[in-house]
Amino acid sequence: MRILVTNDDGILADGISILAQELMKLGEVKVVAPDRERSATGHAITVLRPLRIQDIELPDSGIQAWAVDGTPSDCVKLAIEDLLEWKPDVVVSGINRGPNLGTDVLYSGTVSAAIEGAIYGIASVAISVAAFDNCNYPMAAEFGKQLVSIVAKRGLPPKTLLNVNVPSVEKRDLAGVSITKLGARVWKDVFDRRVDPRGRTYYWMAGNVEEYEGDLDVDSVAVRHNMISISPIHLDLTKYDLIEQLKTWDIKFGDGF
Amino acid sequence: MRILVTNDDGILADGISILAQELMKLGEVKVVAPDRERSATGHAITVLRPLRIQDIELPDSGIQAWAVDGTPSDCVKLAIEDLLEWKPDVVVSGINRGPNLGTDVLYSGTVSAAIEGAIYGIASVAISVAAFDNCNYPMAAEFGKQLVSIVAKRGLPPKTLLNVNVPSVEKRDLAGVSITKLGARVWKDVFDRRVDPRGRTYYWMAGNVEEYEGDLDVDSVAVRHNMISISPIHLDLTKYDLIEQLKTWDIKFGDGF
Repeated sequence: MRILVTNDDGILADGISILAQELMKLGEVKVVAPDRERSATGHAITVLRPLRIQDIELPDSGIQAWAVDGTPSDCVKLAIEDLLEWKPDVVVSGINRGPNLGTDVLYSGTVSAAIEGAIYGIASVAISVAAFDNCNYPMAAEFGKQLVSIVAKRGLPPKTLLNVNVPSVEKRDLAGVSITKLGARVWKDVFDRRVDPRGRTYYWMAGNVEEYEGDLDVDSVAVRHNMISISPIHLDLTKYDLIEQLKTWDIKFGDGF
Repeated sequence: MRILVTNDDGILADGISILAQELMKLGEVKVVAPDRERSATGHAITVLRPLRIQDIELPDSGIQAWAVDGTPSDCVKLAIEDLLEWKPDVVVSGINRGPNLGTDVLYSGTVSAAIEGAIYGIASVAISVAAFDNCNYPMAAEFGKQLVSIVAKRGLPPKTLLNVNVPSVEKRDLAGVSITKLGARVWKDVFDRRVDPRGRTYYWMAGNVEEYEGDLDVDSVAVRHNMISISPIHLDLTKYDLIEQLKTWDIKFGDGF
């Protein structure tokens, strides 16, 4: 099996190193990842300046890797279009430090890298640990390896991917695996407004999430109950059931209409 | 009517100025937009550094405006959370220079700004002119005004928005309005690899799109036939029909499973 690994925390993050080493047990692994943290870059790509790349080996494992001064989506594009000698069987993005749940997946560089893999028709998986401190990367990597092995065997439908969030607990405290939908995530107090030493205002994006109460079939609820959440995601943003309704609006424009 | 206008070409772009002036005919207009071009930023938000804002007036119209050193999504968040005295009835993003069609909407800052509006529960519209030169912004703005007026009256379902692409032709050459789905967009020769004067390689993202042949209910086809394309878009990336199938995979992990 040929696996491309990327992330949005940067190529020197612990999560990607532990993940890449674990996935080596399944086959050939190459890493193409941002040269620094690029969190919350969403599905950005770099078009206003050129990209530069450094060939490196990952510390510890010696895995062949490329550090790109761009976004996670740039990395997947460059890997497939130019850097790799083969088309990957699977693209795995992570292990992200911090959860990627609900509506927030739209902002996630980790998930966007996997979306990019799916755009190329490759089975893709995004993996996050649902904590910012004391992250249990080894357990998330072990589960990732198991899931990738299943995905490679069974395949995924075109233009779909899996978004995985693993609670950062001890393995004995895990409450199982839940197949979930993306829940709503509502943020409060989004900006922290401050004044700099010269009297000018600046804004930090911050905020607190209002936890959504619901069933274990919602990603954030499952994770809060110590379950690993797997959400299937698709790329088709068309709202099909609105098309017929919009047609009844009978919008006309232009000469002769 | 209270309208927030933003874009991803930057606050000094022609498209946003012409759009804002046209929308003034419908009600009160405020502009919050990036201080420079932020094309292809997707749904990026800025979390690794703080944001700064400049109060300005738009040249020509004197419309109150704020220039933000962040992404289109940052702008909509800041406008609603902090800068505006009112919650907008409509968020309008554009007029973008260049089309935002099919799969490419995932990369579009223009569309992402409208998605951000929809996340806040506000009826939102993204408008692009499907050309990079000789853009007919006045006609796109006129159509935008008409559409915004209809949307404000009829409303949109929660978490949906409209993605509009206007051909850059004379009004007499328009072939009407088509309600469309997002088509597939396949890019070829994505990277232009070059060598700098010091012998180091760099990569420009470029590429050519393979035009999709199909019916007029596909956005790119409609535009190529000189029709204004309106695609309804939703934010829910969950692939619901895959949930039951994944449950049959019977994935187990953890002690005691």
